[in-house]
Amino acid sequence: MGLSYGGTSYCGWQSQPGGCGVQDFLERALAQFLGFPTRTVCAGRTDAGVHALGQVVHLDTPLQREPSSWVRGVNAFLPRDMAVQWARTDLPQTFDARRSAYQRRYRYVLRNHPVRPALDFAKVGWTHRPLDLDLLRLAAQCLLGEHDFSAFRSSECQALSPVKTLHAIEIARHGHTLVLDLRANAFLHHMVRNIVGSLLAVGNGSKPVSWLAEVLASRDRRLAAPTFMPDGLYFLGPDYPAEFNLPSPPTQIGLTI
Amino acid sequence: MGLSYGGTSYCGWQSQPGGCGVQDFLERALAQFLGFPTRTVCAGRTDAGVHALGQVVHLDTPLQREPSSWVRGVNAFLPRDMAVQWARTDLPQTFDARRSAYQRRYRYVLRNHPVRPALDFAKVGWTHRPLDLDLLRLAAQCLLGEHDFSAFRSSECQALSPVKTLHAIEIARHGHTLVLDLRANAFLHHMVRNIVGSLLAVGNGSKPVSWLAEVLASRDRRLAAPTFMPDGLYFLGPDYPAEFNLPSPPTQIGLTI
Repeated sequence: MGLSYGGTSYCGWQSQPGGCGVQDFLERALAQFLGFPTRTVCAGRTDAGVHALGQVVHLDTPLQREPSSWVRGVNAFLPRDMAVQWARTDLPQTFDARRSAYQRRYRYVLRNHPVRPALDFAKVGWTHRPLDLDLLRLAAQCLLGEHDFSAFRSSECQALSPVKTLHAIEIARHGHTLVLDLRANAFLHHMVRNIVGSLLAVGNGSKPVSWLAEVLASRDRRLAAPTFMPDGLYFLGPDYPAEFNLPSPPTQIGLTI
Repeated sequence: MGLSYGGTSYCGWQSQPGGCGVQDFLERALAQFLGFPTRTVCAGRTDAGVHALGQVVHLDTPLQREPSSWVRGVNAFLPRDMAVQWARTDLPQTFDARRSAYQRRYRYVLRNHPVRPALDFAKVGWTHRPLDLDLLRLAAQCLLGEHDFSAFRSSECQALSPVKTLHAIEIARHGHTLVLDLRANAFLHHMVRNIVGSLLAVGNGSKPVSWLAEVLASRDRRLAAPTFMPDGLYFLGPDYPAEFNLPSPPTQIGLTI
């Protein structure tokens, strides 16, 4: 199933003893819908405060229901800031929400304005320092391709390898809003937020463009900028091989009109 | 000053004995900034759960500060979902945030999709029934101009007269989002939400287009549809005569990228 949620009220995707994880709320809703407990596997474990537009979750169950019944039924038991967007019941046993994904997409939405966010607080990051779009784009180039991203990896990261392949970083400005789109085979813990923080150090002139390549090459987390706030980070979703015929990750976030 | 706020956590603009009004939070922040209590007057008193993008507020004070100091200083004491966007200190004594405004603009943002909102819950209204844009636009026509809007007026409305002039209703669809923009000299209590509820009854086919004119002509609140949810309602702001040289109401709401 495809799942959207705002991450502000949760301690991240992962189930926690206190029950504050998105997974806990989803599995409680599923248990109410199914009548018995079940476990779920997600495509990308989001951090506390991080939102998801197209998280994908799978579960194994003997229950047979129509996809629309899964959507309506589970949503009836979910909190207001979480909703199943679609469900599929015809996938082969080989499908795994995490292992079948060959690519993930993240977006960082950043308000770049002297006044902090109000209406969309906790939904956008914020920096009041003016940013140079050309510098941001130039600095981002060195991150593309396969690299050891240890310099942008949190100490709590559980990934087996720090080597990931960043397929694309696209940076655009819409008025006072900056949008950074990242696409990689997989991301390390805090990788997007650490990259965003370091990119901003270049974009606001604190560091030269060449600095980012030095940080990357160092593989030393202490050289990168501090982890940027989670508020503006959205997991857009994973990509799966065409054989599964699953919806592509959403590309539009919200209301903004 | 221009003020943005999310209305979800507040019991409306108006100061309340319990202190839950937007006005209460603003006046507490002002008292901390000024060092003494002050009262404020706003352009449009929003209801509980209703948001504001460009609310305008005035106050009389002997304190002399730069506009940028008002913005930064007051924002330091406001909750995260409220922020002063601009301030002006050079207005004549004749200016009054409420009485000087000759027009107000409201926007209703509506999700029209089988699945309820998740990420933008409380920030958009929702209806799962398909809506016909042409029917909505056709039905809205009869509301334009000067009318007695008693049929769309809450019983708690304190306005001296139910006669208002609706200058424009513009309705647009952006994917699964409908946006209704209303502009009038002034609005009665619940007027936008009552109009939206009744328009939707036509747009989803429950009522014929001609029904809305009958409801308006009846001046009977019991004939209109129930008051629609506040979640998607935004006070964009007031318009003032050009002599005051104040910023126009914002036209873009949020992050949506």
